[in-house]
Amino acid sequence: MTERKLDLITTMTALVENKRYATLRDILVTMNAADIAVLFSELEQEVLPLLFRLLPKELAAETFVEMDSDAQEMLILGFSDSELKEVIDELYIDDAVDLVEEMPANVVKRILKQADPDTRKQINELLKYPEDSAGSIMTTEFVELRPHFTVADAIKSIRRSGIDKETINTCYVTQPDRKLCGQLSIRAIILAEEDDMVSDIMEQNVIFVSTLDDQETVAQRLQKYDLLSVPVVDGEGRLVGIVTIDDAVDVLQEEATEDIEKMAAITPSDRPYLKTSVLSIYLHRIPWLLLLMISATFTGIIIMRFEAALAAQVTLTAFIPMLMDTGGNSGSQSSVTVIRGLALQEIRFRDILKVIFKELRVSLLCGLTLAVANFLKLLFLDKVGTQIAAVVCLTLVITVIVAKLIGCTLPMLAKKIGFDPAVMASPFITTLVDAISLLTYFQVATLLLGI
Amino acid sequence: MTERKLDLITTMTALVENKRYATLRDILVTMNAADIAVLFSELEQEVLPLLFRLLPKELAAETFVEMDSDAQEMLILGFSDSELKEVIDELYIDDAVDLVEEMPANVVKRILKQADPDTRKQINELLKYPEDSAGSIMTTEFVELRPHFTVADAIKSIRRSGIDKETINTCYVTQPDRKLCGQLSIRAIILAEEDDMVSDIMEQNVIFVSTLDDQETVAQRLQKYDLLSVPVVDGEGRLVGIVTIDDAVDVLQEEATEDIEKMAAITPSDRPYLKTSVLSIYLHRIPWLLLLMISATFTGIIIMRFEAALAAQVTLTAFIPMLMDTGGNSGSQSSVTVIRGLALQEIRFRDILKVIFKELRVSLLCGLTLAVANFLKLLFLDKVGTQIAAVVCLTLVITVIVAKLIGCTLPMLAKKIGFDPAVMASPFITTLVDAISLLTYFQVATLLLGI
Repeated sequence: MTERKLDLITTMTALVENKRYATLRDILVTMNAADIAVLFSELEQEVLPLLFRLLPKELAAETFVEMDSDAQEMLILGFSDSELKEVIDELYIDDAVDLVEEMPANVVKRILKQADPDTRKQINELLKYPEDSAGSIMTTEFVELRPHFTVADAIKSIRRSGIDKETINTCYVTQPDRKLCGQLSIRAIILAEEDDMVSDIMEQNVIFVSTLDDQETVAQRLQKYDLLSVPVVDGEGRLVGIVTIDDAVDVLQEEATEDIEKMAAITPSDRPYLKTSVLSIYLHRIPWLLLLMISATFTGIIIMRFEAALAAQVTLTAFIPMLMDTGGNSGSQSSVTVIRGLALQEIRFRDILKVIFKELRVSLLCGLTLAVANFLKLLFLDKVGTQIAAVVCLTLVITVIVAKLIGCTLPMLAKKIGFDPAVMASPFITTLVDAISLLTYFQVATLLLGI
Repeated sequence: MTERKLDLITTMTALVENKRYATLRDILVTMNAADIAVLFSELEQEVLPLLFRLLPKELAAETFVEMDSDAQEMLILGFSDSELKEVIDELYIDDAVDLVEEMPANVVKRILKQADPDTRKQINELLKYPEDSAGSIMTTEFVELRPHFTVADAIKSIRRSGIDKETINTCYVTQPDRKLCGQLSIRAIILAEEDDMVSDIMEQNVIFVSTLDDQETVAQRLQKYDLLSVPVVDGEGRLVGIVTIDDAVDVLQEEATEDIEKMAAITPSDRPYLKTSVLSIYLHRIPWLLLLMISATFTGIIIMRFEAALAAQVTLTAFIPMLMDTGGNSGSQSSVTVIRGLALQEIRFRDILKVIFKELRVSLLCGLTLAVANFLKLLFLDKVGTQIAAVVCLTLVITVIVAKLIGCTLPMLAKKIGFDPAVMASPFITTLVDAISLLTYFQVATLLLGI
């Protein structure tokens, strides 16, 4: 696969050098927009405007959408006004809005100037919706039918307007005041008789979202109900747009990435890693590292308080890392499971007692298994003596139980009070569990060893 | 929302008790299959067969698919043979296969007995594909057209067969030997003239997958090319099925969950948390905890080797947790970023040098920032003296750099040699980084403090 792509790059570069534009065009038109965009990202930047001009209008617009924002900006800077206008006219409104959001101010000005007045108005309307809301990701290009249409009218209307719409697979039925009153799949239209009334064959029980709903809610609704698109209504129930499944898939992937980043103590970024500057990566990571470093010093304070005890029994120090690591791992197993369950809506706040009871039993089993294994190792391999082995293993059981209970409870409480549960994941819980396990360790040691 | 649902449950229960079946039916038919399934999961198990019988055939099948496997099993046990047959006849083949895979052997036997011979044959064919392959998640119900059809023929063919197909949004064009030669969206059909030939208006450059491709590849291809369905071909290029976007979305979510679980040192499970038994959760977690506990004892061994040094300078012990935690957090920031980048195909193996160089610069910035902050704290708050502060901060810089380099390199190497990069995430890297940071710590201490 990689080899084949490299060959293609060499071929294309040679063809450009030899000015074989007809051949280049013949190769490009057999390719898919997403693949052309990948290919373009591998080629020298200077040849892009030239190659781009070889593409037929529609394929050019599709390719443009698939490219990353740096390449888009570079291309726009090379476009003449009429070329820019052509591309913008071909874009779906939601893609045009994404583009405007990514570009620097001077490029945005040029884009809006070249867009036709109606498109410009729609772009500006959509830009007003809050970031990551349904309104900000919807498209205003959908097929709208009226209840009194016959199926023949509907097909005529689709044939007239459908070519410019993002999808015709689901058509939406509205009253004259634009209030959404039903939906009709293209399948139902094809299977119906020509003189059936839209109002008779439409589904009235329509799943919809509101303009201000979070994009994650929108994507989850599309997933839950297996929809290809979902209508977006404003405060008065008027249909103002639709969100299609391809955009919802991207949202779900983006949200999963964000959760993963938060769990690893990184402020999420929506740029791909290789396109992000070193400074930006640094700024997304360092606040968390500082915060966690400072909170980790609490464990240092605990150790200092027991300096005398440790000096008397230095062997105890050797088990601190194992106890801390096992506590951290046990806690993050629970927290990550619960955080993902919350994100997928498999776990809700009202399940908190069920979750705690389940984690309690799991942690008992895990804690005892680990303690037994460790006890045998301490006695027969490390030969530390029964007393120290007992101190370590008792601490281990308590640590695992505490870690798992904190790990499952904190994310659920965070969610309840409106915080992001993913931020509560491993690093915070680790710090907390570290402190508790050390306190337990020294407490148990003081009791059993009398130091 | 929750309140409304609770009300509905009370109402439904009261209606069942008063035998108001007509009213119950009237309520149920206004609802969506996914919502009915949620409602059913909240009701007493005994009333389910009764309520289920009130649903119209198609809605009943849709609801059945949305229910979890325990409830499905319970319902099937309560079904008469003819009821079971009715439900199976309404299921899409891919859903029937999922059902057969989830049920215990005796139930599977009953299901296959009630399925009509053609369905049974198709189920058995699909069961032969390896788990998580394209073949195992595809459906065999798609619309197939021939190149010599006119658009009028195509519409007639869709009207005849479309009602039983999972999707008609994209139709596939095959030669008489079933070799895939093109695809035609329903949009193109609607917009075309009645006497246009399918071969003239079809797209010939079809994105497809093979039966043995991994389900993640299939889902990524649907996402990359913004498809609603992708055709699946066998070794000879014959069209044998399609995978629709709704199933791909579920696969992407499932794969993200698996990666998250692996990163947190849990063996992935595909059952929702609340439906998983305590024993099963325990078994998915304990092997990793044991393994990591054993590897954490290496850090213990390192500490024991330096027991004498620590006894002389007990203060050094107080900073062990902070150094270990910061190393762990730094490493998992890098590993998690790279693992997710690999999963989303934003990072490839050939980028390894770029990634290492980027992480090197980020880690230098992070390490120096943390060291400066920590140095000031050590001098002015903890008042430990310049020498110890220097030992701690020098170790900190080295630890952060090593942690980030290991964190970004290990997952990429793992992927290269065919291991799962997600398994390489935080816990393993933490153990490795712990050992390295302790060795560095004692080495630096020996040099600077002369102990």
